[in-house]
Amino acid sequence: MTTTVSGPLAPTAGSATMLHPVGLEGVAIRGGFWGERLAVNAATSIPQGWERLHAAGNVANLEAAARGEGETRGEIFADSDVYKWLEAAAWEIARTGDEVLLRQQRELTAKVAAAQEEDGYLHTIVRLRGMPRYTELGWTHEHYCAGHLIQAAVAQRRGTGDTGLLDVAVRLADHLVRTFGPRASHALDGHPVIETALVELFRETGTAAYLDLAAWFVDARGRSTIGDHARDANYFSDRVPVRETTTPEGHAVRAVYLAEGAADVAVERGDADLLAALERQFAAMAATKQYLTGGLGSRWEGEAFGDPYELPSDRAYAESCAAIGGVQWAQRMLLATGDESYADQVERMLLNGVLPGVSLAGGEYFYVNALQVRGDAVPDDDRNPVNGRLGWFQTACCPPNIMRTLSSLGAYVATTASVDDVPALQLQQYVHGSVAAAGFALDVETDHPRDGRVLVRVREAPEGEAELGLRVPAWAVGATLDGEPVEAGLARIRRTWAPGDEVELVLPFAPRVVHPNDRIDALRGSVAIEAGPLVYAVEQVDLGDGAPVDDLRIDLDEPLLVGESDARLGVPTLLASGRIHRHGPDPYPGAVDAVAAGPVAIRAVPYFAWANRSVGAMRVWIPTD
Amino acid sequence: MTTTVSGPLAPTAGSATMLHPVGLEGVAIRGGFWGERLAVNAATSIPQGWERLHAAGNVANLEAAARGEGETRGEIFADSDVYKWLEAAAWEIARTGDEVLLRQQRELTAKVAAAQEEDGYLHTIVRLRGMPRYTELGWTHEHYCAGHLIQAAVAQRRGTGDTGLLDVAVRLADHLVRTFGPRASHALDGHPVIETALVELFRETGTAAYLDLAAWFVDARGRSTIGDHARDANYFSDRVPVRETTTPEGHAVRAVYLAEGAADVAVERGDADLLAALERQFAAMAATKQYLTGGLGSRWEGEAFGDPYELPSDRAYAESCAAIGGVQWAQRMLLATGDESYADQVERMLLNGVLPGVSLAGGEYFYVNALQVRGDAVPDDDRNPVNGRLGWFQTACCPPNIMRTLSSLGAYVATTASVDDVPALQLQQYVHGSVAAAGFALDVETDHPRDGRVLVRVREAPEGEAELGLRVPAWAVGATLDGEPVEAGLARIRRTWAPGDEVELVLPFAPRVVHPNDRIDALRGSVAIEAGPLVYAVEQVDLGDGAPVDDLRIDLDEPLLVGESDARLGVPTLLASGRIHRHGPDPYPGAVDAVAAGPVAIRAVPYFAWANRSVGAMRVWIPTD
Repeated sequence: MTTTVSGPLAPTAGSATMLHPVGLEGVAIRGGFWGERLAVNAATSIPQGWERLHAAGNVANLEAAARGEGETRGEIFADSDVYKWLEAAAWEIARTGDEVLLRQQRELTAKVAAAQEEDGYLHTIVRLRGMPRYTELGWTHEHYCAGHLIQAAVAQRRGTGDTGLLDVAVRLADHLVRTFGPRASHALDGHPVIETALVELFRETGTAAYLDLAAWFVDARGRSTIGDHARDANYFSDRVPVRETTTPEGHAVRAVYLAEGAADVAVERGDADLLAALERQFAAMAATKQYLTGGLGSRWEGEAFGDPYELPSDRAYAESCAAIGGVQWAQRMLLATGDESYADQVERMLLNGVLPGVSLAGGEYFYVNALQVRGDAVPDDDRNPVNGRLGWFQTACCPPNIMRTLSSLGAYVATTASVDDVPALQLQQYVHGSVAAAGFALDVETDHPRDGRVLVRVREAPEGEAELGLRVPAWAVGATLDGEPVEAGLARIRRTWAPGDEVELVLPFAPRVVHPNDRIDALRGSVAIEAGPLVYAVEQVDLGDGAPVDDLRIDLDEPLLVGESDARLGVPTLLASGRIHRHGPDPYPGAVDAVAAGPVAIRAVPYFAWANRSVGAMRVWIPTD
Repeated sequence: MTTTVSGPLAPTAGSATMLHPVGLEGVAIRGGFWGERLAVNAATSIPQGWERLHAAGNVANLEAAARGEGETRGEIFADSDVYKWLEAAAWEIARTGDEVLLRQQRELTAKVAAAQEEDGYLHTIVRLRGMPRYTELGWTHEHYCAGHLIQAAVAQRRGTGDTGLLDVAVRLADHLVRTFGPRASHALDGHPVIETALVELFRETGTAAYLDLAAWFVDARGRSTIGDHARDANYFSDRVPVRETTTPEGHAVRAVYLAEGAADVAVERGDADLLAALERQFAAMAATKQYLTGGLGSRWEGEAFGDPYELPSDRAYAESCAAIGGVQWAQRMLLATGDESYADQVERMLLNGVLPGVSLAGGEYFYVNALQVRGDAVPDDDRNPVNGRLGWFQTACCPPNIMRTLSSLGAYVATTASVDDVPALQLQQYVHGSVAAAGFALDVETDHPRDGRVLVRVREAPEGEAELGLRVPAWAVGATLDGEPVEAGLARIRRTWAPGDEVELVLPFAPRVVHPNDRIDALRGSVAIEAGPLVYAVEQVDLGDGAPVDDLRIDLDEPLLVGESDARLGVPTLLASGRIHRHGPDPYPGAVDAVAAGPVAIRAVPYFAWANRSVGAMRVWIPTD
């Protein structure tokens, strides 16, 4: 039952999905904007990740576990960082056939295998510290680490054909099946990810018990059974059962990882009620708990979703991992429903929520993605964006998570229709490269998101009538397909195709002003500027020292203009006009107390590119003049 | 050298202060607004505190330590809750002579004494858990607990004459003097309070070594020597030396407790440089890091001060204890400098920062004092104000801290001049009752802060010329003294006085609109309303279900009016006009997307009284129409 989809998400043929994904077997990203990002990921991020996992002790933990004794280093979930790196390596090998990575993959896989216990159990720190298994599952991340191992194993099998890690994963999963479930232990891991991982393992192996256990974990949650560990049930997504959840709450990464696992269960079981609950939950999140950047989680305390409309720019948490989970969840909802707005979400979160998490040079990371940093901000916690991006973290979840997301990016590009009467291929994300599926072989020319033109050239076409679909994002008002206006959603062309046929989609990238919903208190009186799918930010380095970003106002009577591309950053810029307002000394004056000073030229760069020249004051939302 | 000041703050005669405090020996609060609050504190809060300390295991920890073995309960600083209660009891006994409390004080004092070790060391949890002393001083709170013990001991001596706890405190302080300092251990406690406590013990006993050790602790800090314990140096106020600190940062309670101890050291040593540094730091805090309510600390993460102007209403932390520390620091700065703006700060923080922390009935507490709660807020952490006030907390610092603050409130009411040529008495806070100091015996009639009239009647007067000063708060524009206009600051009347003389101060309580500084992003486009020293809030219960507080706008073209006193709450109300704005569904629309609906009458209650009828949506800052 091995899938032919070389990607992290491969619903079975019998699953209740509207669309099926095309994996790396059918998508090649070459050049253009995303090609550059993937090249940096391959050349810098992943090799540095290998070094840093060794330096930080994660690999040593595996070696010690294989010996059965030794000191441990790092956080309780240290193993998972290794597994995420292995997943990144697998997709990268699939993408480029990198021989060094393949050797490293095999070396590390052997160490993971050696660390596994006889009965399949695998968690280096719990073992080495002599802790009883699963007794503190609320915080030990034993299932969480298992989940990332399984994901890496599936990636290794699908991406490289190696089965070394899959053998480990199957033994571990079989152990979990024996140990947990309705007729065994009812304990739940504090941090979801095992759910989606088990479904993928089911998809890879055909073993129904894995899907059953995933379904059990999804439905057992939400009953406040996870020990509190100084946290409340909502921190663990354990306050409300998934089917009754109307809005995500608590720790953002946990909430969205659980939701994606639930989506996997829903489509494999044809569980329409569960899927409907997830649609409601996603809609509530998008309407009231998501940053303009797609970022998720507005509270540092508990790394959590806030209340509806609680979306401060300065203390936005917007963890890079939460955006990654958001992308994964949205992609699952796209496949399940065929609703293109989920593909818009994938685009927004990838570009503005995930991509800011890594430097353009590829070696440094943001854990937290604030939408505002003040000029006199004090560095404190390593996660504080005022420190700039850092090479690694004590909790190093984000860096390898970004690596695996970029190396598997091709899997988000295209889909095929599950139940259509003719071959149908949909382009969901625009990358420069080629796509082959549903009988089509296409070359795609685009510099998206630096430019709105997408040229699709047919190299091979299926026999007879076939449908090519191109996503028109909701932001692309005025888009044209071969010169004809098209509405947001999926623009479909159904006809007979021949090699050499071309389709041109033009997505308007004119800069636009965005207002906040009246309920978002933190943004009142401010606007943001966007162009295409990109959210823009103003950095101190572009304003100069005499004009503090903190005192900037934008003049909406003046036009927004497209600036020249920034040579150093390689990104488009926008230009606007504004003023500096000088504030008074009294924190709470009896009357409005600010004086508009001279006009100032505003230059904005894409938010994902901020803090790549210098780290200073920055803001996405700018008060109006 | 025992002081004659029966209060928590008694600078020596030789200290470099402009003013000296009058303690409970000279101030009686009877009736009026504050008399009611103190009666509730005595009748409900303090007796319930006794019960809750027993139920929570704090007292059992002492008993186990006396036995030398047993399980421990509560947080590592559990002892300090007992000591704060003992301090509250001591001032209450001083105030009312309560016999039950005196018996309880002696019973508990005996248990504390029995728990002390031979060499003076005292910390029940460190001892009972078999931890080595002082090796984890960053988080064990060993000095912190010692500090609260010393404060309680000093209170017991000054307030009740008992010396049982003072004997314990002296033995503990002597042990600290032997163990810490420039020629001994350089370790520092993660949580300040020992500094101010040791200065008071010096003031009480005359032992200079206590002052020296306090000075050492103050100046040794700020050099990043405190082990990180997953926290950065600024969390511990350990990033910047006190003399170089320009603005408080990190954990708010720790920062202000350290600052008050530094102020004590500064005046006892005549250290003008240190005092100047504290003046700068206080000014920066007041200008950029203090809520309108006087509340301190804008971050849940680390219970910390934010960056300048980072003052969100919804996630305001504004811990009750931080406002208490703020009051204590401001009072020290008032004595040191004679600057009446510090007395304004005491007033603002007491009424709007400390008092909201306890229910009007006296049995429930807020740990966190948010300035906004949304209608659909989800209860999570016990500290979240959406839960309403609670009877006790796992970290129960706030309840007994409020108890001791209220029972010693008299000590903030009046001062005498240290270096004047004639007897001079200043009334700093307005309470109904009597004040006797500097040869004066005065009766004060007022219902402040429910009313702005203060009548002072002279019962006894000093021989010859003498000066009576009355503080005119900065908010009291248009104030009159015996019918004549007076400016903000200290209104002084120097003359010969006779029994029966009267002085009438009238402080205008007309409602007023307050704007936020242009830099406070979280408050842009909103205003607050105040009357007298009170900040007001709008609660859902006063708007009705059809008009969500979350959608409220205030119409500044309509007048603010004084409403009738709320019969249930016993507090004044304000009336205003506004509208409900219906927000659109899109979180980030391309244009302003809200529709003004019908007008609505706004009724506001003092912020300290919110959540005493029901717990629902509330906001202090209201967007303008």
